[in-house]
Amino acid sequence: MQLAKDGQLKHFLTIEGLSPLLLEEILDRAEQFLSVKSQNKSPVLRGKTVMNLFFENSTRTRTTFELAAQRLSADIVSLDIRNSSTSKGESLLDTIRNLSAMNCDMFIVRHQSSGAAHFIAKHCPPHISVLNAGDGHHAHPTQAMLDMLTIRQYKKDFQPLKVGIIGDILHSRVARSQIHALTTLCTGEVRVIAPRTLIPIGIEHMGVNVFNNMEEGLDDLDVVIMLRLQKERMQGALLPSEKEYFSLYGLTEERLKLAKSDAIVMHPGPVNRGVEIDSRVADGPQSVILKQVNNGIAIRMAVMAMTMSGQTGELAR
Amino acid sequence: MQLAKDGQLKHFLTIEGLSPLLLEEILDRAEQFLSVKSQNKSPVLRGKTVMNLFFENSTRTRTTFELAAQRLSADIVSLDIRNSSTSKGESLLDTIRNLSAMNCDMFIVRHQSSGAAHFIAKHCPPHISVLNAGDGHHAHPTQAMLDMLTIRQYKKDFQPLKVGIIGDILHSRVARSQIHALTTLCTGEVRVIAPRTLIPIGIEHMGVNVFNNMEEGLDDLDVVIMLRLQKERMQGALLPSEKEYFSLYGLTEERLKLAKSDAIVMHPGPVNRGVEIDSRVADGPQSVILKQVNNGIAIRMAVMAMTMSGQTGELAR
Amino acid sequence: MQLAKDGQLKHFLTIEGLSPLLLEEILDRAEQFLSVKSQNKSPVLRGKTVMNLFFENSTRTRTTFELAAQRLSADIVSLDIRNSSTSKGESLLDTIRNLSAMNCDMFIVRHQSSGAAHFIAKHCPPHISVLNAGDGHHAHPTQAMLDMLTIRQYKKDFQPLKVGIIGDILHSRVARSQIHALTTLCTGEVRVIAPRTLIPIGIEHMGVNVFNNMEEGLDDLDVVIMLRLQKERMQGALLPSEKEYFSLYGLTEERLKLAKSDAIVMHPGPVNRGVEIDSRVADGPQSVILKQVNNGIAIRMAVMAMTMSGQTGELAR
Repeated sequence: MQLAKDGQLKHFLTIEGLSPLLLEEILDRAEQFLSVKSQNKSPVLRGKTVMNLFFENSTRTRTTFELAAQRLSADIVSLDIRNSSTSKGESLLDTIRNLSAMNCDMFIVRHQSSGAAHFIAKHCPPHISVLNAGDGHHAHPTQAMLDMLTIRQYKKDFQPLKVGIIGDILHSRVARSQIHALTTLCTGEVRVIAPRTLIPIGIEHMGVNVFNNMEEGLDDLDVVIMLRLQKERMQGALLPSEKEYFSLYGLTEERLKLAKSDAIVMHPGPVNRGVEIDSRVADGPQSVILKQVNNGIAIRMAVMAMTMSGQTGELAR
Repeated sequence: MQLAKDGQLKHFLTIEGLSPLLLEEILDRAEQFLSVKSQNKSPVLRGKTVMNLFFENSTRTRTTFELAAQRLSADIVSLDIRNSSTSKGESLLDTIRNLSAMNCDMFIVRHQSSGAAHFIAKHCPPHISVLNAGDGHHAHPTQAMLDMLTIRQYKKDFQPLKVGIIGDILHSRVARSQIHALTTLCTGEVRVIAPRTLIPIGIEHMGVNVFNNMEEGLDDLDVVIMLRLQKERMQGALLPSEKEYFSLYGLTEERLKLAKSDAIVMHPGPVNRGVEIDSRVADGPQSVILKQVNNGIAIRMAVMAMTMSGQTGELAR
Repeated sequence: MQLAKDGQLKHFLTIEGLSPLLLEEILDRAEQFLSVKSQNKSPVLRGKTVMNLFFENSTRTRTTFELAAQRLSADIVSLDIRNSSTSKGESLLDTIRNLSAMNCDMFIVRHQSSGAAHFIAKHCPPHISVLNAGDGHHAHPTQAMLDMLTIRQYKKDFQPLKVGIIGDILHSRVARSQIHALTTLCTGEVRVIAPRTLIPIGIEHMGVNVFNNMEEGLDDLDVVIMLRLQKERMQGALLPSEKEYFSLYGLTEERLKLAKSDAIVMHPGPVNRGVEIDSRVADGPQSVILKQVNNGIAIRMAVMAMTMSGQTGELAR
């Protein structure tokens, strides 16, 4: 569904099912954009209209998509959905049909419900591309790809790597997309590390090894990916206290020594200092967190350019 | 007041008082813009600054005005009025004077009070054009013109047509503007169809025929315009229940058969499915609702270009 | 800290400590931009990304910064901070680090805490310029400079002038920046005129004369600068009633006669009519309030162009 008949990327909804070749193409394309100075804007999306549909707030993701669109010379309209017709009782389908009738070329969708971006892609006219900027607990594919770009920049090949994802796997769309991306790119070993209550049942089928003990999980890692712990989780029965979580699963300088000495530390942000990660690690020499943010714009430019390549007549590579 | 000394459109506040020739010119101009692909942006408003003043929320109208301005190469500033100085107790007049001092060229005004756009046009400097994007129960002239464009696309001439407007005429700025446009364009017959409580007293003087019976009103229509029913109306004494309203005035497939077999069905959106219109009609072959949305951008481009033509030195036709 | 090694303006955080020559350069530069019609956009910031960080609402200031950036051909991203990651508990420092990683070139900062812009300037990467758009009770340097531009336009030289600032000096970042600018530009006499409760202790050390009596203070002034009275002040013990304030410190036509006959009346807006100033004065022939608004865009263009001049390779004058 994400691919056009010629195999080109049409929508970008999930990593699942995409070929290693296509993922590599996204990474290569992003590298090209990284080398372009912002002074030299790319004209790739000139005359195209990008609509930001953020049903859920996100400063970071919305801003990087907006910057990416600007640097590709697109026109951008950001809809404040909370004030929109949907609050007048209009269905999502009607909203999408109406926005589609406004001659736009791309929807960037962030939604609290899993599957929203797929639903929209299924129901919008064929000339429109849909990019998933995070849907419920399901997927956040551009986040995963910017993480892959970061890993490739520091570690080159994925095959020899041991990568651990640590934290609230159960509720994390980021983790799900990262796992798909890492396994597609043939990463040597992918581990998920969390208390039992935060690991989805049957996750082994995604090709990962499960660790409930942080120390064991960290052993010999090349890449340590921390997830943000939603503080809401504490209130439910899933977790004891913030303090206890940190004592068991917080990434400290001490614990980080269990990983390889040149391991990199990643986090999708925003960071909860002292909850899932110690400030000395977040700001330390192994942290590549801000590099991830920087890569986010290039990845989004790449995906935007590639999904529009059928329309712009531009070759995707 | 809307016309400059040379007869050119200066502001666009209401349909009332405009000549048939001018309305036709707007429609012709919009058709030209429809044929221009978004790739080929028009430079008509390059260097002009358009300010969106939405005192009342409207995703659809705001977005189409924003897209129209972008496609004419204007700079756009959207003011979030709820957070603005007016909330610090500044008067509308002071707000307008201040914004006028910022070298802008056009105000797009949406306001809950009837007459707000006129008031602003009266008090802003002579080089600024004001476009009414809906004021209270008074007027919504760009909506009416996009409806006229849609009718003309499907039915060519207005003279032989029977057009019915159905629903809450009393509170509808859309209906008021549609009636002015239809009568100015010499439509054969204009009907308003609604319960007595939703029809303004003396509306016959606007040149329309009043029907309280839906079936009688639909008979032989070429164009069926449904209005959105504000659910708030139910709470007052004006209407019984939603269900009863639908049973008496809802547009069903059955009822639509009373109109001409090639009648088109219009609605300004957002649609209340099952309240004023059945989903099968809204999504059916006679519905041109999404065509209306699409025409909205072209109409807004036309009106923007025409009201600025004195400044841009461009001929309006 | 505001100056680069070559003496060029790098950040614009406060007037304090800047040389008269640099202030004159800002004014001259703004005059150049005033003479450029908006049709002829300046390409000075083409390819630069400006981020609006408004932690506190301000329609007027935000809009003029946005217009200034557009007219310099910059890309602009406005962050709705209230919906941002900071509401997820992220620290200001983390927010700034993250935004800095997005390849932006300038932050425009409005913040309720004194010193916020300095803090950000201190912690962001060296290629980014920070402009203070108002921080707590501390400073509002672009407002002060647009006021200086207005004074210079009407009065040419600062040396012979008597300038009075009237109202809530204690809480006013505008007053603080105006005093620094006026004394730096060697204004003949600067007076602050207010009830004792609204004058900061030791303000004489800033080089101003203090008056508690309005009539005495107004005597022979060339420039009368009224400040906005925050109505909140009335609720505390600082002030009696609005009515009493107006009777003692409101600027009436009568009182204005005590100043020079060609004195100009200024106000940073939004005006509280009937609280600190009578409508007949605010709208009268001596009022230059709207001229101030108009100058605001040119001043902001000047400061943006000058702080970026190191990067754009353009000479600052």
